[in-house]
Amino acid sequence: MSDTIQAAFYRGNHSFVVEQTSPRMAGPGEISIRTAFCGICGTDMHVFHGNMDARVGLNRIVGHEMSGTIIAFGGGVDNVKVGQKAVVRPLDHCGNCPACNAGHQHICHKLKFLGLDTDGAMQEIWTIPAHTVHVLPDDMRLDHAALIEPVAVACHDVRMAEIQNEEDVLVIGGGPIGILCAMVAREAGGNVVVSEVNPSRLAIAENLGFKTINPKQLDLSEAIHARTNSKGADVVFEVSGTQSGVDAMTACAATRGRIVMVAIHAQKPTIDLFQFFWRELKLLGVRVYEPGDYDKAISLIASGAVDAETVITDVSPLSDIQSAFEALDNNPTALKSLIKVGS
Amino acid sequence: MSDTIQAAFYRGNHSFVVEQTSPRMAGPGEISIRTAFCGICGTDMHVFHGNMDARVGLNRIVGHEMSGTIIAFGGGVDNVKVGQKAVVRPLDHCGNCPACNAGHQHICHKLKFLGLDTDGAMQEIWTIPAHTVHVLPDDMRLDHAALIEPVAVACHDVRMAEIQNEEDVLVIGGGPIGILCAMVAREAGGNVVVSEVNPSRLAIAENLGFKTINPKQLDLSEAIHARTNSKGADVVFEVSGTQSGVDAMTACAATRGRIVMVAIHAQKPTIDLFQFFWRELKLLGVRVYEPGDYDKAISLIASGAVDAETVITDVSPLSDIQSAFEALDNNPTALKSLIKVGS
Repeated sequence: MSDTIQAAFYRGNHSFVVEQTSPRMAGPGEISIRTAFCGICGTDMHVFHGNMDARVGLNRIVGHEMSGTIIAFGGGVDNVKVGQKAVVRPLDHCGNCPACNAGHQHICHKLKFLGLDTDGAMQEIWTIPAHTVHVLPDDMRLDHAALIEPVAVACHDVRMAEIQNEEDVLVIGGGPIGILCAMVAREAGGNVVVSEVNPSRLAIAENLGFKTINPKQLDLSEAIHARTNSKGADVVFEVSGTQSGVDAMTACAATRGRIVMVAIHAQKPTIDLFQFFWRELKLLGVRVYEPGDYDKAISLIASGAVDAETVITDVSPLSDIQSAFEALDNNPTALKSLIKVGS
Repeated sequence: MSDTIQAAFYRGNHSFVVEQTSPRMAGPGEISIRTAFCGICGTDMHVFHGNMDARVGLNRIVGHEMSGTIIAFGGGVDNVKVGQKAVVRPLDHCGNCPACNAGHQHICHKLKFLGLDTDGAMQEIWTIPAHTVHVLPDDMRLDHAALIEPVAVACHDVRMAEIQNEEDVLVIGGGPIGILCAMVAREAGGNVVVSEVNPSRLAIAENLGFKTINPKQLDLSEAIHARTNSKGADVVFEVSGTQSGVDAMTACAATRGRIVMVAIHAQKPTIDLFQFFWRELKLLGVRVYEPGDYDKAISLIASGAVDAETVITDVSPLSDIQSAFEALDNNPTALKSLIKVGS
């Protein structure tokens, strides 16, 4: 182990700087991981754009969609071994708020998100609380494992939707999380259609075997009702974050349909509440994941049910992190971009 | 039985006319009921205001919150006796749409609502499909029984909310349905607070033993969080039908709280979807009732768990139906007004 490591610091205004720094090694109750890969999340893009400066500051190491190998652990940690492959569920809860008391630690009122509220995985050695670590099978590829965090998001969203076999599922928005929701919903038994306007992403969805609709070319509600014998979609995932997506979600849902709110709507859209009444729709807010969602995500990557090769469209070295973020702003063909953090 | 009966016809533009007419008596599969009482529903008020002319026409007998006594039945009906007290669940479904096929007949895609899409109970003899009739205990007061239909609405809404014992419940809007939701939620074990701005309705809620908040005098969210040790309300019933009610519902709900959309929002309000994400809120659309909700409502009226005496604030003869509707537009002290239809 060298005395210093490479780390990428967000320094404000669309800029990352890669510098040598001293690693913080595991203290009591902590584990240190040598980072292999780290995916770029939409939230990281918000940081890059300067929208989260108040939360992350101007000297933050971001990154949480990571994979790596355990290299050290502190006192009181007895469930891991050095050399094991691992990922991190980047949530640190307070243990003493109404949400924690009700067993919903993942939506703790004082939740710390590792990699936003603390330094993250865009560094060669990352040290985190032991309770956040999930050990991986020895034969899992670490580039594929970097998808486990976003796949766990999809596992959580699909689990909350309680999809039954052969139910009709509509995913509005075919970006990384939308595609992962589609894959996990299909694995749960759903007949999945993906709505997306970006031709590159439509092509990826079709390559993955999904029926697709481009709502700029077809009326989405008419198309869904035509496909479902006038029933509508039993489950709708709104992943677009747009007013048109919110309009479509009520228009496309079946009677008693469940609408899963995956997108983060910073603005307050108008919603057709009359349709909630008329057809007894349900809207389910969903956020991050619980430990079981990570276990499920690990099994889906291990089994190949989630096709990691197709989802990962770009891999760049840590030294190129700046251009990797810039490319995501400009390159509509990318789905999931990884940073190869380890040398 | 006389050859003619009294009936009140909606003739458009805020007008009812009471006239003699010939009763339609039960054919095969039908039951004829001598109407005792019929409550005035908010939907009937919409008819009165001329907002539903396209649906109901200009010669419609309205009314569905009724009670009465069975006086005749047609062929194929073998589960009732002449002389039994009864109420009607005024929903006639098609039996052949996606909702009916999924077992949700109460939200049938082609649902006929008796008393809107067909003539209703503001007539001395009402003949309806046998499957819509629920027989009452012999000792039930028929004025109280006229509350069973709106109580069944509340039973449905509370059942959909899956209220657990000692959960904190907020009812936004203390009109008739709001008060009935509050009563049924309390019977289900909830700790209920009613939010209302009308002083007369606040007084009724307090007389019924509910904690109340006037959101014109206090910040509703602050008051609810103060009462619940910063947790918020586990269940929120939005019964106000206002933008401020929709704003309050997300602000007041606890992490993983369930929001029940009881009000009919003809306009599309803006909704704080970020809060659905952040705290994994659920929004439950609810409409009318299922047979079991009627059974529950009958038991709650029979046991006195719903205090019919306090809810029924006015009773008028059928001949005064015009002034009874006008009074509801002008009289803020009324909660539930009944028409005594039978002589």
